Formats: sequence, structure tokens, C-alpha cells
Amino acid sequence: MRILHTSDWHLGRIFHGIYLTGDQDHVLQQFIQLAGEVRPDVILITGDIYDRSVPPTEAIKLLDEVLSRILMNYKVPIILITGNHDSPDRLGFGARLLAMQGLHLIGQLTDRLKPIVIHDSFGPVYFCPAPYVEPPLVRERLLAPDAVNHEQAMLSLIQHLSAPIPEGVRRVILAHAFAAGGEESESERPLTVGGSGTVSASLFQPFNYAALGHLHQPQEVGSEHVRYAGSLLKYSFSEASHRKSVTLVEMDGAGKTAFETISLTPRRDVRRLEGYFTDILAGPKNGESRDDYIMVTLRDTGPIMDAIGKLREVYPNVLHLERPCLTAGGELRGPGADHRRLSEAELFSSFFEQVTGTPLSGDQNKAFAETLEQFYRREREVRA
Amino acid sequence: MRILHTSDWHLGRIFHGIYLTGDQDHVLQQFIQLAGEVRPDVILITGDIYDRSVPPTEAIKLLDEVLSRILMNYKVPIILITGNHDSPDRLGFGARLLAMQGLHLIGQLTDRLKPIVIHDSFGPVYFCPAPYVEPPLVRERLLAPDAVNHEQAMLSLIQHLSAPIPEGVRRVILAHAFAAGGEESESERPLTVGGSGTVSASLFQPFNYAALGHLHQPQEVGSEHVRYAGSLLKYSFSEASHRKSVTLVEMDGAGKTAFETISLTPRRDVRRLEGYFTDILAGPKNGESRDDYIMVTLRDTGPIMDAIGKLREVYPNVLHLERPCLTAGGELRGPGADHRRLSEAELFSSFFEQVTGTPLSGDQNKAFAETLEQFYRREREVRA
Repeated sequence: MRILHTSDWHLGRIFHGIYLTGDQDHVLQQFIQLAGEVRPDVILITGDIYDRSVPPTEAIKLLDEVLSRILMNYKVPIILITGNHDSPDRLGFGARLLAMQGLHLIGQLTDRLKPIVIHDSFGPVYFCPAPYVEPPLVRERLLAPDAVNHEQAMLSLIQHLSAPIPEGVRRVILAHAFAAGGEESESERPLTVGGSGTVSASLFQPFNYAALGHLHQPQEVGSEHVRYAGSLLKYSFSEASHRKSVTLVEMDGAGKTAFETISLTPRRDVRRLEGYFTDILAGPKNGESRDDYIMVTLRDTGPIMDAIGKLREVYPNVLHLERPCLTAGGELRGPGADHRRLSEAELFSSFFEQVTGTPLSGDQNKAFAETLEQFYRREREVRA
Repeated sequence: MRILHTSDWHLGRIFHGIYLTGDQDHVLQQFIQLAGEVRPDVILITGDIYDRSVPPTEAIKLLDEVLSRILMNYKVPIILITGNHDSPDRLGFGARLLAMQGLHLIGQLTDRLKPIVIHDSFGPVYFCPAPYVEPPLVRERLLAPDAVNHEQAMLSLIQHLSAPIPEGVRRVILAHAFAAGGEESESERPLTVGGSGTVSASLFQPFNYAALGHLHQPQEVGSEHVRYAGSLLKYSFSEASHRKSVTLVEMDGAGKTAFETISLTPRRDVRRLEGYFTDILAGPKNGESRDDYIMVTLRDTGPIMDAIGKLREVYPNVLHLERPCLTAGGELRGPGADHRRLSEAELFSSFFEQVTGTPLSGDQNKAFAETLEQFYRREREVRA
């Protein structure tokens, strides 16, 4: 069984004010071509397809285009689970009819959720889709009173999904979750605000392959066959050093797996430049593109007139400029005070302290975290 | 060929503050059953499926449920065009794949738009889908410079769609348009603000059947085979006397058609009551339901404490109360001044006059009409 695993496309994403749909289109055209070349038996997409529950129409058209072309040209079945950014109801339109065409959109949690079975010459493989769901929904829909946190909720989901699988048969799980031990970057939205939200990577051990989504860095967690495919593109400057890729998995008849990561070439890379103004103005080195999305950190201490304007004459897509020397010791405390790097909880706590003069108490912190979670939950429109 | 024609479902509609999804569900369950009983060769849905371009998730789930059940249980193909309330991009997700399952979602205008051919024992019938589109889009996408207004745009669309149909073969058009001579009610949004927006009914004459959407009153326009199916439910109190229905069309081998209108029973009717307070408090007559959505017009002149509260003890769903005697001659000019019955243009012109003391000039009126149209166009997210 040949499996192509990709994740966290975040279609409709806005990066420092720029819509990335064109960049996403560029990479996804390569993905379509790749699917035609490697001809996998199945494609797995493990959540955060869209960047928000009501995506812009360009994002909807792009997803439609990519999935339709793969299915119509190559007849490769696709299994897609929703992540914490997606709306299960919106993505789920037509799901039952689309499944007959080989497009399995899995977002809704019901007690009828079950594995999708795909055969190769060695027999069946059971693919268990575990879309992102909040623990209260698992308690209600699967009648699982123990699902009080993400760990227990995932356990209940796995038990439910595994029940119909015969002993000794190959099994793959698709999950959108934060596996403990995985490495975060700055562009994932936390699964719970102020809480842990993690699940043990060991939960995924019994599967022959665990296709994970949520963390944006491609990585294995705990063991080689428990893997994040990582995001489609670099979605924050903290990911500048990531090597984004999709994962090609070959599984033999005994369920043993081998892996290959395949890079796709972005239209523009995301890079950080640090140095003195005049050096940076000298422009890109051989092999570097001046069109990349650039964050510049200047070491200069003196005044520079219209620094960003001049930088953009050399690098038209400079999106962010930092001058740590100017702000260190001043009222801004250097790059650490960049509000774009703070979580909602940190932002609010800093605002609260500035306004009231006292830090947030534990209870207040908790109240804020709960409110924020409710807000995200509503935004995802997951209703009981 | 047996055709079931329905239109203007407006899923997600809010009626005087009440979400109608439950009422729409109630009637659509009957529609599913009807489809199973009459077993049409095709179902036509002629636009305004949703009430707005970004519908609430309940509306999406309901549409998914209805279409999936009809297709999966009865295998009746469905052709659905978008109306002026729908977003072609959002409704179009998965369209190419869904078409293979018999669900034809037609919203996008491209030069590849063509008839859908369905056969009966007499041979093929060509179904020409003409979704709601603005004239500028027709000019651009069909390279039709003459499409300067809705009339010309529809003509271009019809010519484009008819081109591949062989001479003498039966043809049906689906259109979402305001055919001149048709009777409006208060719940359709005008197709052009301050303009005509109408198209000649004679454009539809050459078809063996014209399945129209937009007007909410079931009616024929000009001749028997050019018909509005009307809306799913009564969507304003001005429609209290309408008889809502779906249309069953039987077409013979020569393309001659016979019609039957079939009523579905709403969970709650929409009714108007007029009279004296004490008489209305006496309650419903035999055969009338106290649960209907009610608008009450009171003839009393004296003061009545908490009239609506007392009326709701008898009719829990009184949604609107009018007391024309109290307002006649006063600052309000009676029911005519009810802002809910004014168009956006009338509302704005009255507001403008109140604030500035002078009426809108012709130019100002035109500027407002253009702005409003732009707004609607953006809302529909139809982009060139």
C-alpha cells in the first residue's frame, strides 16, 4: 500500500497582510503532478485544510480544483479529516455522495463514524479517521463519560474506530492532535487555551502508520511510524528553517512501513535576514531569490530614513522589519515584545496589567482561557 | 419525461427574527417523500437555494441531507442553478464530482457551460441551466458585448446554451430571472436596484418547458409552459394568501407538457388577522392552528396594555402587530410607513430627506442605486 500523506494546507491563510492563495496554488499544482507520478493507493490529508471555518471563496475554488483533478484524472481515493481550524459542517457538504467518488470528507463525529477500508494485493487496510473534536462532543456523541480531556477523548475515539477492525489486520490512523513531545512553531493555534491539549504519542503506537496533522514542522513523534507531514508552506517566520514536504509511505503486506519525504518548491520562500543595512542592501547571494517573503533584522543603531522602503527596492516582499538595538532598554523590550509572537493569553494578560496595574489572578486567567475557548468553539461551529 | 420543479427554498431564512430552518426541514421531508412517490426522471431547483451567500451551517446540513437522501434512495438526478441570493463558488464545491452522482450544481458561468442531457423512452431532453448572473459577467465570460442589461444577457445565455442542441429535439430551460409580467411579492430581493432587471417572457417560449425561479408566487407567465414554481414557504405576510406548491410536469415524446401543482403542508401557516382585540382573543376558528405565524391588525382606537403579550397567550407565534388607527394622521402614516415594507432605496431616500431636508436628486438616487448594486454583487462574490 502506497500512501501519500499531507496536512495543514491552511487555504485562505493571510501572512503579514498577504493572501497566500496564489502561493498555495503554486505548490498544490506540484502536488497534483506528484500524485500523478507516484500513483499512491490513497491520499491522506490530516486537517486544517482551510485557515478558518468560513474560508474565502478563492480557497474553496482551489480545494475543489485540487481534489477534483486528482480524483478525476488519477482516481486516487482521498481521505480528509477536519482540523481545529475547519468547520465540519461546511466542509461536509455532499460528503455521502462524494464518498461514492472516492472523496472521503470526515468532520462530523457521530457514533456511525467508522474506518474506511482500502485494499491492496495483500488484503485490506483499515483507515481510521479521527477529526479534531472537543472532549465534550466525544462524551456526548460516543457516550464516553471518561473523555474529560484531549487524551481521554482520543482514547475513546481510537477505541470506537478500532472496534470493527479484525485482529491482525493492517490499520492506519489519521488524527489532528498535538502529540506530546512534538515540536511546535508559531503558526499553530493551541488546541486548548492555557491547558495542555496534548495526547500521548503512545496512543498511536498500535497502528501501522499514524498520519498526524496540527504541528507544522514535518517530524516523527516517539517512533518512526508516528508522523506529522507538516504544513504545506511556511506560515510564520519562526518556520524559516523548516524543510516542508509531503510524506510518501510504503507499507508491505505485514504492515511494515518505509518513508520518503518529498519537497515541493514554493513560489516564494520565507526567509530571515539579519545584518547591517548596507550589507543587506547588497542584495541576494547566488541562488537566493529577491522575491522571497523576507523578515529583516537590522543591527544598525543609528537612524535610517525609510528603511523598509529602501529594503523593498531590493527585496520587494519584505514583510517585517525589526531593529532590536533601537528598542532594547527602551519602552519596548526588543523582539520579545513583538505582539505577533504573543499568544492571545499573553496579549490579554499584558493588556490587563497595563490597564489595571495588577497582574491577572489565577481565577481571572482561568476565566479568560475559558471564554477564549468558548469563542474558538463557536467559531468552529461544532454544536452538540 | 416526468419533471418535478421547485424553487426559492431560501434555506437559512430569518422571518421576523425567527430562524425558519425547522419549518423548512418539515416541508422538505415531505418533498423527499413526494420524490419517492412520483419518481420523477429529474428534479429541477431554480435558484435561491440559500437565503444568503454565506448560509448558516444548519442550512448547509439541511440541503446536504435533502439532496443526499433523494439521490441515494431514489437515484433521481437533480439539476440546481444558483439564484441572486446564492454564492456560486460556495455552492459549487465538489460540483464536478457530484455531477457523476447525478447532482448537477450549476452556478459558475464559463464558456463551457452546456446543457445536461437526460433520456426517456422517446429520446433525449436537453436541460439548459441559466443561473443568475450579472450582465457584466455575461459580457466577459461569453464574449457577448451586447449583454448590456438582463434582457440581453439572458438572450446571450440562451443562445450559448441552445447552440449544441440538435434541431427538433426537446429542450427545457432553468432560469433565475424576473420575467416581465410576473407578479412580485415582498420577499424577493430586486435583481437591479432602481432599474428594471426584467427579461421578456417570450425569450422562454421556444422551450418545451421553462422552469423559472425568483418570484415567490407560483404562476405561469405569458403561457402555460413558462412557469414559476414559487417559494418553498411563505416568506412575508404579503404572501399570506399564496398557495405554495411544487410543480409536476409531464412531457410527452413531442414535447407537449401537462402540469399539476402539489402542495406541501407547512409546520405553521403564515396568516394575517384583522379585527377588534376582544374578537381576536377569542382564538382560532375550527381548523385553524393557534401555532401559525400571525400578523395582527387591530381596529381598536383606545389604549391596550401589553397587547402583544396578551395576543401571544392565544397565538404564541404572533410576530407582528399593527394598529393603523393609532398612527393614521400622526407622525407615522399608517401601515404604509412600516419600514419592513420599504425597499432599501425607499428607506434611504426617506432617511436622506429627514436628515437634509431636501429630497434625493436624480444623480444622488443613481449613485445610491449603483452603490447598493455593487454591495449585492460583492455579497454574492461573483467576480470577473
